[in-house]
Amino acid sequence: MRSFYALISSPNSYRHPLVSRFLSLRFSHFSSLKIQQSTATHTITSMDAAEESLRRALAEKQSRIEAQGNVVRELKSSGTAKPEIAAVVEALNALKLEKASIESQLQAVVSGTGASSSVNRDSFRQAVVNTLERRLFYIPSFKIYRGVAGLYDYGPPGCAVKSNVLAFWRQHFVLEENMLEVDCPCVTPEIVLKASGHVDKFTDLMVKDEKTGTCYRADHLLKDFCKEKLEKDLSMPAEKAAELKHVLAVLDDLSAEELGAKIKEYGITAPDTKNPLSDPYPFNLMFQTSIGPSGLSPGYMRPETAQGIFVNFKDLYYYNGNKLPFAAAQIGQAFRNEISPRQGLLRVREFTLAEIEHFVDPEDKSHPKYSEVANLEFLMFPREEQVSGQSAKRLPLGGAVSRGIVNNETLAYFIGRCVGIADRSAYDLRAHTEKSGVPLVAHEKFSEPREVEKLVIAPVKKELGLAFKGNQKMVVEALEAMDEKEAMDMKATLEAKGEAEFHVCTLGKAVTIKKNMVMISKEKKKEHQRVFTPSVIEPSFGIGRIIYCLFEHSFYMRPSKAGDEQLNVFCFSPLVAPIKCTVFPLVQNQQYEEVSRLISRSLTAAGISHKIDITGTSIGKRYARTDELGVPFAITVDSTSSVTIRERDSKDQIRVSVEKVASVVKEVTDGQSTWTDVWEIYPPHSSVSADE
Amino acid sequence: MRSFYALISSPNSYRHPLVSRFLSLRFSHFSSLKIQQSTATHTITSMDAAEESLRRALAEKQSRIEAQGNVVRELKSSGTAKPEIAAVVEALNALKLEKASIESQLQAVVSGTGASSSVNRDSFRQAVVNTLERRLFYIPSFKIYRGVAGLYDYGPPGCAVKSNVLAFWRQHFVLEENMLEVDCPCVTPEIVLKASGHVDKFTDLMVKDEKTGTCYRADHLLKDFCKEKLEKDLSMPAEKAAELKHVLAVLDDLSAEELGAKIKEYGITAPDTKNPLSDPYPFNLMFQTSIGPSGLSPGYMRPETAQGIFVNFKDLYYYNGNKLPFAAAQIGQAFRNEISPRQGLLRVREFTLAEIEHFVDPEDKSHPKYSEVANLEFLMFPREEQVSGQSAKRLPLGGAVSRGIVNNETLAYFIGRCVGIADRSAYDLRAHTEKSGVPLVAHEKFSEPREVEKLVIAPVKKELGLAFKGNQKMVVEALEAMDEKEAMDMKATLEAKGEAEFHVCTLGKAVTIKKNMVMISKEKKKEHQRVFTPSVIEPSFGIGRIIYCLFEHSFYMRPSKAGDEQLNVFCFSPLVAPIKCTVFPLVQNQQYEEVSRLISRSLTAAGISHKIDITGTSIGKRYARTDELGVPFAITVDSTSSVTIRERDSKDQIRVSVEKVASVVKEVTDGQSTWTDVWEIYPPHSSVSADE
Repeated sequence: MRSFYALISSPNSYRHPLVSRFLSLRFSHFSSLKIQQSTATHTITSMDAAEESLRRALAEKQSRIEAQGNVVRELKSSGTAKPEIAAVVEALNALKLEKASIESQLQAVVSGTGASSSVNRDSFRQAVVNTLERRLFYIPSFKIYRGVAGLYDYGPPGCAVKSNVLAFWRQHFVLEENMLEVDCPCVTPEIVLKASGHVDKFTDLMVKDEKTGTCYRADHLLKDFCKEKLEKDLSMPAEKAAELKHVLAVLDDLSAEELGAKIKEYGITAPDTKNPLSDPYPFNLMFQTSIGPSGLSPGYMRPETAQGIFVNFKDLYYYNGNKLPFAAAQIGQAFRNEISPRQGLLRVREFTLAEIEHFVDPEDKSHPKYSEVANLEFLMFPREEQVSGQSAKRLPLGGAVSRGIVNNETLAYFIGRCVGIADRSAYDLRAHTEKSGVPLVAHEKFSEPREVEKLVIAPVKKELGLAFKGNQKMVVEALEAMDEKEAMDMKATLEAKGEAEFHVCTLGKAVTIKKNMVMISKEKKKEHQRVFTPSVIEPSFGIGRIIYCLFEHSFYMRPSKAGDEQLNVFCFSPLVAPIKCTVFPLVQNQQYEEVSRLISRSLTAAGISHKIDITGTSIGKRYARTDELGVPFAITVDSTSSVTIRERDSKDQIRVSVEKVASVVKEVTDGQSTWTDVWEIYPPHSSVSADE
Repeated sequence: MRSFYALISSPNSYRHPLVSRFLSLRFSHFSSLKIQQSTATHTITSMDAAEESLRRALAEKQSRIEAQGNVVRELKSSGTAKPEIAAVVEALNALKLEKASIESQLQAVVSGTGASSSVNRDSFRQAVVNTLERRLFYIPSFKIYRGVAGLYDYGPPGCAVKSNVLAFWRQHFVLEENMLEVDCPCVTPEIVLKASGHVDKFTDLMVKDEKTGTCYRADHLLKDFCKEKLEKDLSMPAEKAAELKHVLAVLDDLSAEELGAKIKEYGITAPDTKNPLSDPYPFNLMFQTSIGPSGLSPGYMRPETAQGIFVNFKDLYYYNGNKLPFAAAQIGQAFRNEISPRQGLLRVREFTLAEIEHFVDPEDKSHPKYSEVANLEFLMFPREEQVSGQSAKRLPLGGAVSRGIVNNETLAYFIGRCVGIADRSAYDLRAHTEKSGVPLVAHEKFSEPREVEKLVIAPVKKELGLAFKGNQKMVVEALEAMDEKEAMDMKATLEAKGEAEFHVCTLGKAVTIKKNMVMISKEKKKEHQRVFTPSVIEPSFGIGRIIYCLFEHSFYMRPSKAGDEQLNVFCFSPLVAPIKCTVFPLVQNQQYEEVSRLISRSLTAAGISHKIDITGTSIGKRYARTDELGVPFAITVDSTSSVTIRERDSKDQIRVSVEKVASVVKEVTDGQSTWTDVWEIYPPHSSVSADE
């Protein structure tokens, strides 16, 4: 079921234009840093050239070391003179040093940091996560009860970022693209999710520790095994490494049997106890519950918001004046009872999802704004290349559409504006039509009636009854179910030979149909409209993932002024920053405090979220504390007539009159002006005492 | 458990200042209409003076009719002359007419419409609901599967209203009051809700149809019975009516036994089948589920958002610099598996809740902004007066605080800004402290150490062991649990008599404590800080209820220009209106269409949500369609240089240049100007053709 979702995943170094809107981009020192940060859940696992050549070099060095070792042993046992042996040992040691150097290069490559960089990905992530948890961007839920895996709370700054991202999303999609927003309950009756296929197929493969009963996700165990092996066993033959990499690349496509076989083959055991594991079996990821007091109406917490839109298709189509295409959108909670959640905000049991269902005529998937995105370049990783273990490629959307990698213009348009797109075709609307009996279809009225040829199959029940008796019904149904080609072939055979062999699935055998048993013809009819099930393009956004990605992309460290510690900064753009501005009296002083309160009131009037800090803490410390929350601007009151505004990343300051300061901050936070603009207008300020 | 929530309910005719912010208030024709609309769930049920006197008059008329009837019968049987009989019959008919008139007055009073009004409350509500469902403000969820009781979807205009209300709420509380917002999961492990008391006590009383097993809420059946009886049985003695009204007033406080007794006494049966009913028994309203794959970790969908805040108290207190008071807020879904949901959006199984938990020092519940609300008048309905069956009274908050009806300033402050307040005292924080072992407390550091007297109870275990053997532990615990008064009384008795009788609950009996078994004293200690559990004031908002209330308060009907039909209007203020503005070319014409698109682009640039309608539909119909969505302003393009802006409720129009129109609309939708302001600046427009 998870393979619903198209696999256009973002590799490590790639940043979608949408995420860029949330970052303050004036500062070039990020461009080098970003390359080493991984935010995608699907990691690119193809064996790249550098790694392969290092593995081969390492293997070759290892065999030369073994050979040289043998030489040393032979010389020693044959009683050769010491100086001669010493020379050979020296050569052996040189080989060992060379091996160690290759090993460390390979280590750097496989752990993803690149040989030339000293920044370690894991320690970088740890620094981000520590800062996020310490400043309450997010925290494990129910912490005082030792938490629940896969559940997180957003604290005050995290909530503010989330609400800014959602407001932007609503502006960017719902308002600018005139989408129809809906808001449906999370509690969903079984019949809806039975129709959509989730009750039967929304599963992950699970294995159990055969002694303790502890549950694990089968693919995770295999993935961890392969990754650890690749990272730690550097002397592994390149062919073996390639095999493990292939397993990682095709992991999502393995069946229960294939997964089970690999787990057996590699001798993988339960990570905590080393006990043997059960065979993999499917576990449904939906949280089940019961609706109403009778206990007789099963329900589930929705695993996606999409179904709420599909079941409302008829009303939404009507609301849109019975016209296609149109898009509906929904923002809300979704629930997946993950077997063993990990990776912080990236795989959780409850999350905010923002989904768009764009309904189009399946015969016309063009998009009026396609030209706006056709030249944008994206890293793409087509399914065939994933399966064959190759790597991602950078392609323009226009080229990808013309080569068929991206199926149509509408899909391409949303890739240009979004991440995580699926073409769900007519699957869901058909499923709900069938289960509910309510036709979820669209109509195209023809300006004048069209003549169409229609296949007509008319079984002659009397003759069929005489020939097939009790089996008549099954034969009639099978005849009526023939498609155009089958029917026309039979017509030709009947006309040529007078009878035809015909396989009836429900009987499990072939029967002989005679010419007088069925009439097959094509008739011309006038039609006034076309009735069809729309196709659905689905851009789907996990808001928590976007926010975590934003956190990682925004985080950097820089030395304090004294150089004795590293200070953390989130370079959020004003659009998403949890607080836009601070107000600090430079020193504790009644006049400065009054001016600060005056400025605070004008900021409130201008609708700018801000924080006032009148404690006697040093100005440097106050800057550092709020840099760590990603506050873009700080107003420091150092006189009663004019004040300074400091920009977070450059630490540049300008001097502005008390009357004007709120409107200047409003300009730069609303995006009417950039910091560069105001930097050119207002005098710079460079007092040593006012900065850290 | 539901009695957690303070009963300060809003009666029918009352409108909270917060709701008023969402209405366009320029038009006085609402003031008379509002009186008849009920939006509160708790209806005021006290017997008012008018009704009581009508019931008495009716009973008196009835007995006079009976007496007069007897007179007629006697005269007839005694063979009295016809003209004489006719005069007596005439008097009887006059009495009957008078009775009918009183009956219709009483009918009007009990059905809540007031005798002088022709607007019927139920038909008004039906008109509102029909409009809301037809225009997709909200719709029953999963409609194509015949829906699920108590679950509703918001369609496009409903979603827009909801998101506007939430944005305003966040501005009004979180930003303006500097609250700490959190966002916690809905899925909650059992231990949290066990601690809070929900697992054991979050129940409603249910009765079952003894034959079919259908479930009903016991109090609803009793309520329906009483209300129907009061409305339909007008000849009921006033004393009986008063009894039923009393039952309605105390309904929420009846125990299972009392409810069961009333149901038996009144002979209430299952509404659908008339079968007998079971005794009432508690049904837990939480949706239960299971967390993780093992099936061993029970969880629930949270029934309120408050608990997520309480379990985070420690972190939030730290985030606030370890200072009180502070408020935390959360907006999110809550779930209650209602036994038999009804009343549309007012009682549903899943809803958006916005809750504030304001933490204060229990010894100082003053509020710095109290003076801002002290003079506001509110309709109040103190618990004692509810129980004694009296009616609500209008009181200023200041007076209510000084009379003790509202317990403290902080509570009063939030009543002035909100609806639905509870004083949860220290209940939740203490419960979680006990269950989790993590102290959820605040500290008040003294500027200099204070000398305090502390009670010291030191049981002498050796003597107690000799005297009580196996029961020693229970006696020791009971001695240590004595409060100050008990302990000092025992000390006095021991000193006077040498021994004291002492009841040990856990033993279920009294024991004799001798002087040598325990030492009781008061010791002076120096304390550097006070450690205490904060009190919690909780303003809680059901967003769906606020929105439904807004819908009812905003709806009105007015005749079309031709006078042949009634048109619906929602008089939303621009703040909450789902769409702020429409753009209509007066007639289909390429030039007008180009101007319309130009205006649309400038509205988008100004961030104003709007709709452009270039269909050839008559301008009157286009106005009517969007009046029904509550769109406050319409721009009509009837020339290429200037256009008109029409205000929805007054239908007044002004003429503005094409260049200026977007900025004028922005001014009036942002609230910088009112329609009256711009009406004075720009020339009025009064073309007959441009209006309906």
